[in-house]
Amino acid sequence: MSTILPIESSANPKLKRWRKIAREARAMRREGSTLVEGLHLLEVVLEALESPDRSQRPDVRAVMISEHATDEAGDLAIRLAERAGVRIYGLLGPLYDELSPVEHGAGCMCEIALPAENPDDAAPWTDDLLYLDGVQDAGNAGTLVRTAVAAGVRTIVASPKTAQLWSPKVLRAGMGAHFGARIIENVTAETLRSRFAGRILAADARGGEDLFAAADYTDAGPVCWVMGAEGPGVSEEALSVADARYYIPIEKACESLNVGAAAAVCLFDARRRRLARGAL
Amino acid sequence: MSTILPIESSANPKLKRWRKIAREARAMRREGSTLVEGLHLLEVVLEALESPDRSQRPDVRAVMISEHATDEAGDLAIRLAERAGVRIYGLLGPLYDELSPVEHGAGCMCEIALPAENPDDAAPWTDDLLYLDGVQDAGNAGTLVRTAVAAGVRTIVASPKTAQLWSPKVLRAGMGAHFGARIIENVTAETLRSRFAGRILAADARGGEDLFAAADYTDAGPVCWVMGAEGPGVSEEALSVADARYYIPIEKACESLNVGAAAAVCLFDARRRRLARGAL
Repeated sequence: MSTILPIESSANPKLKRWRKIAREARAMRREGSTLVEGLHLLEVVLEALESPDRSQRPDVRAVMISEHATDEAGDLAIRLAERAGVRIYGLLGPLYDELSPVEHGAGCMCEIALPAENPDDAAPWTDDLLYLDGVQDAGNAGTLVRTAVAAGVRTIVASPKTAQLWSPKVLRAGMGAHFGARIIENVTAETLRSRFAGRILAADARGGEDLFAAADYTDAGPVCWVMGAEGPGVSEEALSVADARYYIPIEKACESLNVGAAAAVCLFDARRRRLARGAL
Repeated sequence: MSTILPIESSANPKLKRWRKIAREARAMRREGSTLVEGLHLLEVVLEALESPDRSQRPDVRAVMISEHATDEAGDLAIRLAERAGVRIYGLLGPLYDELSPVEHGAGCMCEIALPAENPDDAAPWTDDLLYLDGVQDAGNAGTLVRTAVAAGVRTIVASPKTAQLWSPKVLRAGMGAHFGARIIENVTAETLRSRFAGRILAADARGGEDLFAAADYTDAGPVCWVMGAEGPGVSEEALSVADARYYIPIEKACESLNVGAAAAVCLFDARRRRLARGAL
């Protein structure tokens, strides 16, 4: 049975460090760490620790529970701390809440190391991709990661202006999908073009081909869907490297779809076409 | 030019009433009013006031701006107040923020009457529907309204356990789609079955037919997609009145889709099938 180390002061150095990681993308990158909150997410982390592929196993650095944690959350935290061989910290309620990405957290979280992409790795990307082009809303970004993985697209590439995909809020909205994905951040449209060995498709409400009426675009190797931010849509930079533009034939009365809904339609259109051809 | 009536006290009776409407679903129903916040939404309200169909015109009761409103927000508020023939109230920043459904509001909002469904109207529902079966998250519920309208499904019916669809947060996430929709709330699965003159289709991750491989389900009159809450999914009550169940063929590694993404896939699958048949 693990001993729970109490943290009762707002000035505790560990707490101060976690607070920075929770709030500042810069601190998150500097420390190479993020926070994962919630029962479901910790279950996913626990499961990923058993992965036969070592590179898929998260590097858990600490486990934290709130004094208000339910028995279920407490048990899970203890199992995770034991499995990862790390310490477990018991935080006063208000201190825990400062770290939690949601108002009424589950009472358990952990710190994990950010998975590092090897910067010298210049191998071409040969799988299907999703490129997030300036998606800044954390909830949308997390949903996009989740939807991509569900659609079988496991490599998610993000432009420099996109939300930090490993931030606690994006992780929370991703519901664990991050741990089944390869996430590559700070990639310009130019780099995407030079490294991706397939067709780049922009989802663009302003024009292009009707997505549903278009000929099969999945029969010539991997595809990369590009999703832009709400409002501005796909950037000029990304449009300039796209091989094709498609619009979703929505009702005229309506201006646009939420980016999460649009991505679901595009990613599952590609999946439907592949399934129909027996290519999956 | 309208005179702006200042509200500077937290105890102002009008402010107290709006605060209740903003926070309590019960007060919203009792007063028959809701609050609409944000530049985009107010533009939609302004446009809807010009609708040739009188029943589509929102009943605007008051317009409010923050002392921190931008010129753009102020201009819009004045145009809306003049067009609707109502007063405009200028609120101190902190008072405005108490009413706003988002942390950094746009600085302009209005009060509108909740559109009333005639309780004696027992006419069958003959258009395509979306049925929200216990969707409690306001952001998800608003996105679902927006996605449905974009997919050409303009009647949205909600179960008693679903979020209040006219609440300020749901309106905000709906991005104006509410004003192009017919919204009917507090409808049990049993009532749905008795009033809807078409096929009821449950989106159910637990089983049924593969959505993409299934035969066309749109060629025998209107359809109603049923979307359940995150986690529990479609309820037993709703399943018991469904004519068919479909699952979205997601990747096995992934547990489920966000309900907004799942609805986008289902609603646009129906739209794609109809477009392919030339039925739209």
